[in-house]
Amino acid sequence: MHKQSENSTAPAGPAVFHPIGHIENSFEAREKSGPCEGFPSRIVLKGSFADGLQGLEPGQDVLVIFWFHRSTNYQLRQHPKGDTTRQKRGVFSLRSPHRPNPIGITQVRITELEGNVISVTGLDAFNGTPVLDLKPVGGGR
Amino acid sequence: MHKQSENSTAPAGPAVFHPIGHIENSFEAREKSGPCEGFPSRIVLKGSFADGLQGLEPGQDVLVIFWFHRSTNYQLRQHPKGDTTRQKRGVFSLRSPHRPNPIGITQVRITELEGNVISVTGLDAFNGTPVLDLKPVGGGR
Repeated sequence: MHKQSENSTAPAGPAVFHPIGHIENSFEAREKSGPCEGFPSRIVLKGSFADGLQGLEPGQDVLVIFWFHRSTNYQLRQHPKGDTTRQKRGVFSLRSPHRPNPIGITQVRITELEGNVISVTGLDAFNGTPVLDLKPVGGGR
Repeated sequence: MHKQSENSTAPAGPAVFHPIGHIENSFEAREKSGPCEGFPSRIVLKGSFADGLQGLEPGQDVLVIFWFHRSTNYQLRQHPKGDTTRQKRGVFSLRSPHRPNPIGITQVRITELEGNVISVTGLDAFNGTPVLDLKPVGGGR
């Protein structure tokens, strides 16, 4: 039995988020994930969001917050990277896409900005993945 | 006019996420945000998610992904930290809570784990904020 908090002030949900754009690259869902340092992707925002990119520059790192939209189930304890030779661990200690809320976060390097399109390297998300947000790395400034 | 991408393969939305828990601390919405290094909070997960914490340890840092559930509007260009003496910038170059999808991400230090409750320091979110996800800092392991 787990001890649970007595003080339950949880507000109502759910949260409903509309993607601000999507990812375009050559990384298809059939492939296994691997190291993707230097791997190029384009983040294509809806045109109406282009003005929100002002202040970002090539060479800068940003966090990409995306939706693992093909991830439809999860287990609370999973083998790290699906490797059954490793002991299962809690999903919140893993980066698995199979999680209660399938949100992915990756730090990427901006290589080019043009209008509503951000070219980046290092994004480990499949072609077509919906993007929910972009944030600067580090503090708020 | 912004040049827009021709290749539009954006999938359907929206994303619907159910909070996995909420934040408890003494930081009320009326106060201005400030430095919160060392500031203590409790992350209270729904009891059914407690097993997902296995593998996290006191002393370790985690990313808390939360929902700015009181944030109901945004501008694409904003003064950094609301400081009108500073030039407006694009929302995606800022950590403002007022953004198209009001998702917050903060790296915190775990001080204690007990059942479904994680005690942390450094969380800059108000009391009652819904939590969407927790992730280890760095790679997937």
